[in-house]
Amino acid sequence: MLSIRDRKLLTALERRKAREREGAFRAEGVRVVEDLLASDLTVRWVVSSPGLKASKRGERLVAQVEERGIRNHQISETELESLADTVTPQGIIAVGEIPQRDLARLAAILAGDAVILVLDAVQDPGNFGTLVRTADAVGASAVIALPGTVDSWNSKSVRAAAGSLFRLPIVRTTWPELLPWLRQEDFRVLASSAEGDPISQVGDIRRVALVVGNEGAGISDEIFANADRGVGVPLRGHAESLNVTAAAAILLYELLR
Amino acid sequence: MLSIRDRKLLTALERRKAREREGAFRAEGVRVVEDLLASDLTVRWVVSSPGLKASKRGERLVAQVEERGIRNHQISETELESLADTVTPQGIIAVGEIPQRDLARLAAILAGDAVILVLDAVQDPGNFGTLVRTADAVGASAVIALPGTVDSWNSKSVRAAAGSLFRLPIVRTTWPELLPWLRQEDFRVLASSAEGDPISQVGDIRRVALVVGNEGAGISDEIFANADRGVGVPLRGHAESLNVTAAAAILLYELLR
Repeated sequence: MLSIRDRKLLTALERRKAREREGAFRAEGVRVVEDLLASDLTVRWVVSSPGLKASKRGERLVAQVEERGIRNHQISETELESLADTVTPQGIIAVGEIPQRDLARLAAILAGDAVILVLDAVQDPGNFGTLVRTADAVGASAVIALPGTVDSWNSKSVRAAAGSLFRLPIVRTTWPELLPWLRQEDFRVLASSAEGDPISQVGDIRRVALVVGNEGAGISDEIFANADRGVGVPLRGHAESLNVTAAAAILLYELLR
Repeated sequence: MLSIRDRKLLTALERRKAREREGAFRAEGVRVVEDLLASDLTVRWVVSSPGLKASKRGERLVAQVEERGIRNHQISETELESLADTVTPQGIIAVGEIPQRDLARLAAILAGDAVILVLDAVQDPGNFGTLVRTADAVGASAVIALPGTVDSWNSKSVRAAAGSLFRLPIVRTTWPELLPWLRQEDFRVLASSAEGDPISQVGDIRRVALVVGNEGAGISDEIFANADRGVGVPLRGHAESLNVTAAAAILLYELLR
């Protein structure tokens, strides 16, 4: 049974304002909820339908939820489908707590060599999630989202990030706050652009903040003006540029290889 | 003025079957139509609205269409918006001809060193377009789409490919037809997977077919069994895998650097 209040919350969490007000987000589907449970984030409660237990994997997930003492509201398939954001909700939706992360706390965990990915107004939730997943996979230490960047906890971002949003620290801040912090923490600022130099030419890459820009407009002039260096992927083909997720994948890989 | 027949065609081209029957596709927006006109593909006709001429760039595009002797059906803003697939159609939609490309013709243009990207059931049109754009940018020579891969001429694929679909040869075929062709043309088959070896370990990469798989299931067993080698991006972070566009970007870049 799901109370009217909880049902309203679940629906409201599709909107950014409600997520910010409630400090909570939705995670949908077996894989995403597994990743959420494996992370340090707090899970408030879940809703699940009988179909979830049809698979061994679903059964294990239910058992894990119950062992952890997380409330499991059991609802019908039809009800779950009506609440779901995806076509195949796979019998489970969880409400997780948005972790509060800021620059001060980030400094404490970033000793030694570290690469940070900075997103300047990345608008597409699929791109955002893919960037976080890539950063996590190749070994970046954090993601910083500047104004204009899509909300991290959009359900499309959560899906595209495939669990990485629950692991990698994501901090929202502004450039005027970030820049002095980067200087103080001894990070070099590399701004990605089609005309930038190859990573092999930029010298010291022990502590780097790699900035990637908006899908259409690229990085803002203000950030470019403050960057230590422009970096890019040398292109040998015909397309003028890579999309932001492909460019970031190659640059991060080169920085961390 | 747009005849009822042409209007119906434009709407029908949103569906794969109609695209295949008509041998035509839609390209929408200033940038995409510019790229289409700059390519070798045939443009059947365009529809445009008065708003297009409000910008210098739009004006130049109209002039170019008319110089080339391409029919330009002028319609109202409202009519264009009702026909458009995107929220901001930017005053122009073109109907282009789908080029007919097959393995025999591909062989003729692929002498010497070459990297081909092979897509095994890549389902998402955004991923498909991004993969074609990346392949084109880093210097791959062709893309081969195996069964289960989304239609190349889906309007989302066309947008995500940002012009590269009009330049790079895309061939649709099956694995049983492709494999003997690859052997005969002396291509090594590298299958991408999370557990594969780094490109630095695979030896001769002068003529390579890099196969990437479905977003969820990866590469089919049949293809894996026929591949000369499994290749992957060594991951130093926490996520178990990269998404297909990020993995392909890094692997193609490594193969072609």
